[in-house]
Amino acid sequence: MRVAVLGCGRWGSFHAWYAARVGHAVTLWGRTGSAHLAELCETRTNEFLTLPDDIRLTDDLHEAVQSAEILIISIHAQALRSFLCDLRVWGLGEELAKKTVILCMKGLEIGTGKRLTTVVREELGSAVKPVVWVGPGHVQDFVRGIPNCMVLAGEDREALRALVDVLGSPLIRFYYGEDLLGTEVGAAAKNVIGLAAGMLDGLSYASLKGALMARGTRELVRLVRAMGGDGETIYGLSHLGDYEATLFSPHSNNRRYGEAVVRGTAGDFHKIAEGVYTAEALMALSEDYGVDLPISTTVYEIVTKGRDPREQLTQLFLRATKSEKE
Amino acid sequence: MRVAVLGCGRWGSFHAWYAARVGHAVTLWGRTGSAHLAELCETRTNEFLTLPDDIRLTDDLHEAVQSAEILIISIHAQALRSFLCDLRVWGLGEELAKKTVILCMKGLEIGTGKRLTTVVREELGSAVKPVVWVGPGHVQDFVRGIPNCMVLAGEDREALRALVDVLGSPLIRFYYGEDLLGTEVGAAAKNVIGLAAGMLDGLSYASLKGALMARGTRELVRLVRAMGGDGETIYGLSHLGDYEATLFSPHSNNRRYGEAVVRGTAGDFHKIAEGVYTAEALMALSEDYGVDLPISTTVYEIVTKGRDPREQLTQLFLRATKSEKE
Repeated sequence: MRVAVLGCGRWGSFHAWYAARVGHAVTLWGRTGSAHLAELCETRTNEFLTLPDDIRLTDDLHEAVQSAEILIISIHAQALRSFLCDLRVWGLGEELAKKTVILCMKGLEIGTGKRLTTVVREELGSAVKPVVWVGPGHVQDFVRGIPNCMVLAGEDREALRALVDVLGSPLIRFYYGEDLLGTEVGAAAKNVIGLAAGMLDGLSYASLKGALMARGTRELVRLVRAMGGDGETIYGLSHLGDYEATLFSPHSNNRRYGEAVVRGTAGDFHKIAEGVYTAEALMALSEDYGVDLPISTTVYEIVTKGRDPREQLTQLFLRATKSEKE
Repeated sequence: MRVAVLGCGRWGSFHAWYAARVGHAVTLWGRTGSAHLAELCETRTNEFLTLPDDIRLTDDLHEAVQSAEILIISIHAQALRSFLCDLRVWGLGEELAKKTVILCMKGLEIGTGKRLTTVVREELGSAVKPVVWVGPGHVQDFVRGIPNCMVLAGEDREALRALVDVLGSPLIRFYYGEDLLGTEVGAAAKNVIGLAAGMLDGLSYASLKGALMARGTRELVRLVRAMGGDGETIYGLSHLGDYEATLFSPHSNNRRYGEAVVRGTAGDFHKIAEGVYTAEALMALSEDYGVDLPISTTVYEIVTKGRDPREQLTQLFLRATKSEKE
């Protein structure tokens, strides 16, 4: 099939590489002036991978969208709304309703706490029915041929099954899920748990990552249930199943960022980790749905309000004595 | 209070060290002829720690049991029944009904799949009401002062609260749980998931440990529910909360054993990892309760029947395409 990948950063370039590997005709789009696109045009390589020759590179959004049956969107979560506005303004919104739109991104809109599929519906209308593609795996591992399981979630089971056939391979084995809400909230929130894990690493409290896993999942199950989703989704591939990659892997950007916060070197990162935005978005959801989120709140207070990590995290894990169910 | 620790291996010696640190008067018992006891008597040290001078060492079981209000039992899970038989034969069974008995062990009886508290009830009668003390943490970390959360589970909430006050400290912060069944099955079964994690490490498939966590918990939730326990307990400290220590830590005996199985060096271990017995015990429970346990079964078939790890694990994680809920 014809696939266009919109966004050419680490994951966008990987999705193009992967779609070509699975046998599709691929166009990879980057915005005009993108340094990532310029690098790929010049060398067909970035720090993660080399693109095969038959992937077409372009900065023409019209051409990219119109060329494809499947659109994979892989840009920064916080830039999604303005990107969709542009699509709409340029008359491409209706075009998207005729295609399979896949969001390969993890995040919640800062300020509103909205899910990314909600942003799509608000900007393009409900005729566009996006699917989300999330779950574990690092680009660095995939390009070395190390397989993983991932998840495709959407509201139409038959469409998901068909998509699994089109995109699955021995390198990525897909499971599909119908709880779009739980999948999106869980996939975004795992970055917040990843920040906390990095902070524990930085404090030499890595052994508390066990308690972090047990209690982090628990608060998010409560949130997803309050929002009307299936709490169990948190324990699936999109959240718990992504903990190896997010809480333990040296590649994890959010874990590394959390560690840098503790060491006072977060300023060395050229951009803020996505979990920082997600923590703030979760504060909006915590208030809207009246659900206490102790770990997410602690992370938020450390990264946004500059509270002391050791004091906050010690208090979180080591002060209270109580029932596990409380 | 007066505490006797029965069993002087790695964990037994740690429990004595810890009880003394918290301020209790401690007797540490080892069987007559125990090499561990001989080493401790001679040097007051083993490869993990040094015992303070005020801990009394003895091989006299009568004296140890009668001296204490709290008995902490820390021996091999598969040796529990014969140890309790000895206690009964020596007339100490009734003595135990008057004391707080804490089982600090993780396992299920091979052949029957019985829980360790069931073994206690069968051998000593229902007047003895054991509490279990499980959860994350490595001896190596605790003796370096690295804190963790653990769990005390039993059927009497007030007794648990009192025990938490007596045993808790800044080094070990206790949560208490009332689902003894889920706690025991989960604490035992995490060793089986640890074996699987080690095998994935050995195959350079560490990134599949995310999927292992998501799917391992799921099959055990189903089992605990079928047995009449609270499935959610699996996601607490006794199981999921112990995954950092069991699936990721270099100290984890079961993880290392699983890795050795893949590398063909399991024969170098001076004893079989507890998870090997637990995997077999889980097969009995799977049949008794009619619950499919794909990961536990795969581990069992690899460690007991010599099936090929790469083929079995690849098939487990990477073959089927299906809904996450199936």
